[in-house]
Amino acid sequence: MSVLPSPSRSVVESLVRDSLSRQLGRSLPYQDAPVLVANSSARHMHISPENLAILFGDGAKLTVHKWLYQEGQFASEQTVTLIGPRKRIIPNLRILGPERTLTQIELAFTDSIQLGIDLPVKMSGDIEGTPGGYVMGPKGILEMKNGIIRAARHVHMSPGDAKFYGVKHLDKITLKVTSSGCATRFDDLLVRVDPSFKLEVHMDTDEANACDLERATRVELSVS
Amino acid sequence: MSVLPSPSRSVVESLVRDSLSRQLGRSLPYQDAPVLVANSSARHMHISPENLAILFGDGAKLTVHKWLYQEGQFASEQTVTLIGPRKRIIPNLRILGPERTLTQIELAFTDSIQLGIDLPVKMSGDIEGTPGGYVMGPKGILEMKNGIIRAARHVHMSPGDAKFYGVKHLDKITLKVTSSGCATRFDDLLVRVDPSFKLEVHMDTDEANACDLERATRVELSVS
Repeated sequence: MSVLPSPSRSVVESLVRDSLSRQLGRSLPYQDAPVLVANSSARHMHISPENLAILFGDGAKLTVHKWLYQEGQFASEQTVTLIGPRKRIIPNLRILGPERTLTQIELAFTDSIQLGIDLPVKMSGDIEGTPGGYVMGPKGILEMKNGIIRAARHVHMSPGDAKFYGVKHLDKITLKVTSSGCATRFDDLLVRVDPSFKLEVHMDTDEANACDLERATRVELSVS
Repeated sequence: MSVLPSPSRSVVESLVRDSLSRQLGRSLPYQDAPVLVANSSARHMHISPENLAILFGDGAKLTVHKWLYQEGQFASEQTVTLIGPRKRIIPNLRILGPERTLTQIELAFTDSIQLGIDLPVKMSGDIEGTPGGYVMGPKGILEMKNGIIRAARHVHMSPGDAKFYGVKHLDKITLKVTSSGCATRFDDLLVRVDPSFKLEVHMDTDEANACDLERATRVELSVS
């Protein structure tokens, strides 16, 4: 598996008009239907400026490797090595920018099995009681007391999109993926609403592999 | 990820009575409801006696490492190394017994990304046009012209179970997995009916990781 979000991620665009017309019992004009994008996130790290300084030296800044779909978000050129409690390692773990207030590492279950840790499913930012580890950068080692999670599958959306789907922040919704031989409905998709968000589903690489997201022919959000 | 079917597989038993009662519109006596088991299959190989002789020497036999849920099936003590077309390898690939007429390797997409091959989703045995590779054993190397697949998710069942669910051989059905934070419905679950089969869903490790099968609290089959 690549550690880069870019090669392992897959962008599938699909109009949701048909299914929503069925749900709403009326046809929708084309411009009403938001375009849904579903992407997989490979394992990655978010980092605070203080922790970045420990790993990459005073005054270090994240530099852009590749822009992501959400405005202002990017895969940085900076990577680190994660050392788990059983001394197994995950090399080339990529940091996503920009810097945040909270340092956090998001892995798939496959990664956690390799690392030998028990990974909880958490919403981004909800890191109390989660496992920690050591992170090695070119200028130093950071001890994370906690902050290693499997990010709960989620969908970013604007308040307008939320109104369209009839959901609110932290509701759960279903993503239906149509894919040859492995059609899958992901329930428990957490809705995250913010005016800055573009409509985008984030799943991890295990989920993307389970439904063959890369070759999926259709993705739809559904409230049932 | 472990290469052993045993440690990475998870057995979840769940009575399907409630959901079937809803579907059938009547309550079912306890003894009517078959017990459903869902297991994940780690990557593995099936092998013909001729190919086993190439890899392990004339007269070699598979020996039992661990019995599996289906009658007479076992994880053998024999493992091989798979060499992909790009010279990347998967070591310690376990052979399942008993021997079959057809040699075949079943991988998850995560494995295929590591190996650098494009993996088709196929029903077991349907290997025409699928990728091949080299397999290295202690006594020789086997060239597989084809036979590397992602096995389509499927459920084994007896004719009695098929009648109970109202399905027939090669129908598709849905597996609903209830799991904290990652509830998932696997559509496209292929029904395989044989008098020798015990009721059991087989998914691969990507699918099991996507829904956290190991910690799932309930598995149900549904025709919708």
